[in-house]
Amino acid sequence: MQIMEKRNLFFISDGTGITAETLGHSLISQFEHLEYTSTTLPYVNNLEKAQHAAHLITRSYETSGQKPLVFATLVNKEIHTCLSKAPCILFDFFTPFIHKLESELNMSASPGMGRSHGVQNTHVYNARIAAIDHTLSTDDGLNTTHYDQSDVILVGVSRCGKTPTCIYLAMQFGLRASNYPFTEEVLESQKLPESLLRNINKLHGLTIEPAHLQRIRAERRGGRYATLSQCQHELDVVERLLHHYHIPIIDTTMKSIEEIATKVVADLGLKRQIV
Amino acid sequence: MQIMEKRNLFFISDGTGITAETLGHSLISQFEHLEYTSTTLPYVNNLEKAQHAAHLITRSYETSGQKPLVFATLVNKEIHTCLSKAPCILFDFFTPFIHKLESELNMSASPGMGRSHGVQNTHVYNARIAAIDHTLSTDDGLNTTHYDQSDVILVGVSRCGKTPTCIYLAMQFGLRASNYPFTEEVLESQKLPESLLRNINKLHGLTIEPAHLQRIRAERRGGRYATLSQCQHELDVVERLLHHYHIPIIDTTMKSIEEIATKVVADLGLKRQIV
Repeated sequence: MQIMEKRNLFFISDGTGITAETLGHSLISQFEHLEYTSTTLPYVNNLEKAQHAAHLITRSYETSGQKPLVFATLVNKEIHTCLSKAPCILFDFFTPFIHKLESELNMSASPGMGRSHGVQNTHVYNARIAAIDHTLSTDDGLNTTHYDQSDVILVGVSRCGKTPTCIYLAMQFGLRASNYPFTEEVLESQKLPESLLRNINKLHGLTIEPAHLQRIRAERRGGRYATLSQCQHELDVVERLLHHYHIPIIDTTMKSIEEIATKVVADLGLKRQIV
Repeated sequence: MQIMEKRNLFFISDGTGITAETLGHSLISQFEHLEYTSTTLPYVNNLEKAQHAAHLITRSYETSGQKPLVFATLVNKEIHTCLSKAPCILFDFFTPFIHKLESELNMSASPGMGRSHGVQNTHVYNARIAAIDHTLSTDDGLNTTHYDQSDVILVGVSRCGKTPTCIYLAMQFGLRASNYPFTEEVLESQKLPESLLRNINKLHGLTIEPAHLQRIRAERRGGRYATLSQCQHELDVVERLLHHYHIPIIDTTMKSIEEIATKVVADLGLKRQIV
């Protein structure tokens, strides 16, 4: 048996810290026998805050006896130098790549800090907010007359993951994502309503394993809605309906929201509207 | 004047591609004179897909006459080797850091691919879905009796950014984020309703520059709601009210949703519930 290793991690950035956390967690997830506690320090954008961060790192080292792992996106050299003197293993996600880009592009990086998750331009910002508004206003079969403005419409039975996926698509891709629940009436008629037929190329189906759906529904409310036979029946009918109309399907069982969303984007050839 | 440089970028991953896009865009945003078009290739998880990606890179090189910049998170060595032979400038976001971690931790990385945005465990997944459900069910002053289960409650005037920030907090931090709009009644009474008073330590105020709010409101609907004097008046009253109760405030003008959300988390000392 592999011995568990325990470490303190820091994610440090002069911006939101989101990039440092994203890549840091990606790397750490490759080490399944590593246990850790983590601290995120965003907006470390002056020397005073850098010294405070260095102090926290030093204290972590003194308490645990091990150098903490520090994942950093820091543009400012002075701040970077201050942290690199602290007792830690520093993973610098910026400097080596910026140097390589500078030499390849024959350009100097601009000294602007923390721009990656800032407001890059008002047009993009407004498009994102509009996508979120549209998505919320067309959640769960609301306002089907707005589907002409939708980029994508997710369909499937109740509680298969439509709403979280739509919100993710709006928030992270700037896509106007609507969703339409296949209720008993739709399933019994075996026909798509007119609002969906008019936008059939925007449709993507979600499905899920019956037993998994049953567990999710049972946590919300009981009754026939949450029986395995009902779940199985609904899913069978939906699958036949979607195949009939050649609508792509993704099984959401044990998939993260990110995985479902990126698969939908790839299947429908959608274009990211925001970066 | 600096000459504009135009490049083709690729984000390639054996998982969702989100990590490659996040760090790639962070780096690229430091070069303001770079114009680019980008292609994201997620789920490049076998040799056939890698060869297809290499083909696209080669075609881009032949068409543009310049080697495209490729930002990659690839765990599999064979896939990595296949891409590194294509005519491109490869930015490998995994290998150097994985090697450094292996040697520092004295552990081998597990060969699991694309785990960073996958389902790490069911408990975390369910917590995230529950946070999104809670957030949507307590949007815009709905179900204030559920505030006892909220982690954070954003308050402010209409259209200052409460809803998108709450959704981001739920989706990316797993926090149960509610929001309460300060309508004219609340503003006139100069008192917080009981549901907010009972949870006063969870409150965070959002404010915005009057002229900016006026523009946002005018795009939605006209009337008194969208006049500068009305916006100015509402914002003044809210600011007094929030100061009176010692509630922290953030100005959302020209801030991204990420910046607002990470600031709220930092101000209230909230703990990220999902990674």
